[in-house]
Amino acid sequence: MAGKKDNFPLVLLRGAGQVFFMENALTGLLFFTAIAYASYATGIWATSIGAILGLTIATLTAQLLDCDKPSINSGLFGFNGILVGVALPTFIAATPQLWFYIIIGSALSTVMTATFSATLTKSWGIPGSTGPFVLTGWLMVAGAYSFGALDVTGDSPKLVSDYVQGAASIPGNIELMQIFFRNIAQVFLLGNEVSGALILIGIFVASRQAGIAAALGSLIAMITAIGMRADPAVVIQGLYGFSPVLTAIAVGVIFLKTDGKVIAYAVLATIVTVFIQGAYDAIMSPIGLPSFTAPYVLTLYLFIAPKKLFAPHPHQAVTQHLVKDN
Amino acid sequence: MAGKKDNFPLVLLRGAGQVFFMENALTGLLFFTAIAYASYATGIWATSIGAILGLTIATLTAQLLDCDKPSINSGLFGFNGILVGVALPTFIAATPQLWFYIIIGSALSTVMTATFSATLTKSWGIPGSTGPFVLTGWLMVAGAYSFGALDVTGDSPKLVSDYVQGAASIPGNIELMQIFFRNIAQVFLLGNEVSGALILIGIFVASRQAGIAAALGSLIAMITAIGMRADPAVVIQGLYGFSPVLTAIAVGVIFLKTDGKVIAYAVLATIVTVFIQGAYDAIMSPIGLPSFTAPYVLTLYLFIAPKKLFAPHPHQAVTQHLVKDN
Amino acid sequence: MAGKKDNFPLVLLRGAGQVFFMENALTGLLFFTAIAYASYATGIWATSIGAILGLTIATLTAQLLDCDKPSINSGLFGFNGILVGVALPTFIAATPQLWFYIIIGSALSTVMTATFSATLTKSWGIPGSTGPFVLTGWLMVAGAYSFGALDVTGDSPKLVSDYVQGAASIPGNIELMQIFFRNIAQVFLLGNEVSGALILIGIFVASRQAGIAAALGSLIAMITAIGMRADPAVVIQGLYGFSPVLTAIAVGVIFLKTDGKVIAYAVLATIVTVFIQGAYDAIMSPIGLPSFTAPYVLTLYLFIAPKKLFAPHPHQAVTQHLVKDN
Repeated sequence: MAGKKDNFPLVLLRGAGQVFFMENALTGLLFFTAIAYASYATGIWATSIGAILGLTIATLTAQLLDCDKPSINSGLFGFNGILVGVALPTFIAATPQLWFYIIIGSALSTVMTATFSATLTKSWGIPGSTGPFVLTGWLMVAGAYSFGALDVTGDSPKLVSDYVQGAASIPGNIELMQIFFRNIAQVFLLGNEVSGALILIGIFVASRQAGIAAALGSLIAMITAIGMRADPAVVIQGLYGFSPVLTAIAVGVIFLKTDGKVIAYAVLATIVTVFIQGAYDAIMSPIGLPSFTAPYVLTLYLFIAPKKLFAPHPHQAVTQHLVKDN
Repeated sequence: MAGKKDNFPLVLLRGAGQVFFMENALTGLLFFTAIAYASYATGIWATSIGAILGLTIATLTAQLLDCDKPSINSGLFGFNGILVGVALPTFIAATPQLWFYIIIGSALSTVMTATFSATLTKSWGIPGSTGPFVLTGWLMVAGAYSFGALDVTGDSPKLVSDYVQGAASIPGNIELMQIFFRNIAQVFLLGNEVSGALILIGIFVASRQAGIAAALGSLIAMITAIGMRADPAVVIQGLYGFSPVLTAIAVGVIFLKTDGKVIAYAVLATIVTVFIQGAYDAIMSPIGLPSFTAPYVLTLYLFIAPKKLFAPHPHQAVTQHLVKDN
Repeated sequence: MAGKKDNFPLVLLRGAGQVFFMENALTGLLFFTAIAYASYATGIWATSIGAILGLTIATLTAQLLDCDKPSINSGLFGFNGILVGVALPTFIAATPQLWFYIIIGSALSTVMTATFSATLTKSWGIPGSTGPFVLTGWLMVAGAYSFGALDVTGDSPKLVSDYVQGAASIPGNIELMQIFFRNIAQVFLLGNEVSGALILIGIFVASRQAGIAAALGSLIAMITAIGMRADPAVVIQGLYGFSPVLTAIAVGVIFLKTDGKVIAYAVLATIVTVFIQGAYDAIMSPIGLPSFTAPYVLTLYLFIAPKKLFAPHPHQAVTQHLVKDN
């Protein structure tokens, strides 16, 4: 990892890939394609521009702060920034101050990445993962309510097909397919099944195991959400699935060594994430904040802390996803 | 402790006893009797069934995860599960999905117990105590609002005698007696003074010191709540007393070595818990969540962390209440 | 520091000074003058009495608990207590129970100071700073809603001049001057520009660097809040500036060694604090709680944790602001 080339565009693409734990520039390129496709489909390009801006600022901030160079080159200081850059224009109307806001928010996400590494990871081996994005996103969206120069537009669906009317409580086959792929696309806040397919391909390009975990995570989330009779209009947008998909990959493949016991543990974690998604929806909606990937982050922190109960993971695989503390 | 017999029913009874820090099967049996008596009085058996289910699943999960065996046999992986099992049917109507929900929630409480041990206890010597129950309870009740298959019925009192009408702001002698025992019973979410008496006997069976602390905690809470003019209808249900009772036992007897300074410290902590109970009521009610034992948990964490200010506790007594980290 | 004289009145004055990180009795005296001046201007003396009471109880509690003596003598166990003592009468009407409440709250702030030291500081080098005040203040104000003996009066401005009507969205020169000084005064919850000037003088008496940082922090906060078009009626009371002022001093001068990189970092942190202030306003107002210095505390914790990215700070300067863990 220390030998990774310090080519800035490649570093940025790896940062995009790390949203799904993939240190792979081609994967990152496919993810960017997915974001751009959704912008093309909706005609809203602020999210794509925000993605590039957030990723760039977050990575540059890490360089200016002299953060751990191999971690930077692996993209580990970029993936929270790209999510901040996509999320803020999704919930806040584009004004000049929004771009200033994204710049500060992306830099903040890098500071938080260093902080989570120096605390959670250092003391307890818990990866910060997208925790910095969630906390930054909450603070920035909440703050936007206080500033006249920023206008919170809410998390109204961006695609016409997202407006579900009279959805049957048992979705049909086409809807099930849409849910399956949107569960993956919504990690990037995209309610678009084509984007979801592009992202899943991107994951498979880098890791077959992670691709399978993503697919199974999406399936388990879909079954659990429907079985618990969650609001069909929300389920069909993929909003019950994106956090569980991340949980399935993280707990099942990335941070623990896959075996029978870990697979059972990951299934439990994935179901728990669906329940926590329901909890966050009930708690956050009244205060006008989206839950982002918080259900995944909380589940990850809770399920990874007691990792010594599991067989030791080959050194390299784990450390490559943990930000080093210089 | 390592020599404790691995007899599963005894392990379960010790798990019940650990709700009040008592590693004693007979105490646990009395606690179960108290729960069953309240079910008999109200005709609602879902809480009793939930108690057995939650306790069993939580303990089995700890065994499947290979958690520290002496901790399991002491019941330290059971008491959060029994509380989850009693709490969920108290706030959510019984449907098939509720039982699935309790199973997942109980398993989750065991994962959290391991996590709190690997973080709070390992780094700072803070016992997780009923923190996993509180966090699991909040997530599961909040989640229930999002799922059509689950129906949150609220924390309406379960006994006719709980419906206080025109309660005098200075309670009479009989009411004071009811408050005294309900303050203890509500640890198991029971608004029943007979159950409270059974539980207090159960504590005295295992430890005279803990029994005295429980009684004093209940008294101090009653005086403080009435002196601050808390809502009499809430006070008389015992809802201002159950967290302070736990604080009095935990800070005064279990986690610090009882002496004059510790007793003064425990009195301060007990009063603080009453105030924090008032705070949680004000904060949590609008979002439709009960505070469970959160006022106790927060007080415990705050007051135990600086424990080096006090005389060292005999080794055995402290460690027997801390979950070991394998 | 260990040689500091154990003269109780001097210890109290240093405790007042430590609200702005200044271990200086003369500074503390000027701060008390600022508090008394605001009481004189408004005719409300409960805040001044509360200040003395809270400071005294908090310091005495630390002595009774045998906390680290040099830390006590430096005033590090007093500054949270003085803030509790000023804040509670600001938001709760004076009744006999209020004074009992302040006594318990001030003692609690000392327990929390010891706890934050034994956890955040010990493991991660993060100073507790005014975190104990914020947490105590939230719990006590929230609790007051539940107790009939306490009456939450809200954070209505206390000075006639605070009632801004039809404020121009671009404030005039006099208003800018008022904002500049009130940004500093509001650290002590005073919306009074004369008090702000007295406090700034007090800071300069002890440290020229800290005084400059305070002034620059106030300026940056004012520009950011106006540029983001925050509510002018709130800006003019200084409520967007007090947390950023503390951030500017803490990050720019106290806890990191001032150099070019640190100054840029402190500017980022100061702007972030303004945004977080906006976020807290949006989140806390609906539940009826003031944000106190929480925006500063969160920013400080986030920005100080990765302090190893910066040049090592001369030993003495840093440790003199960290509570020692006995």
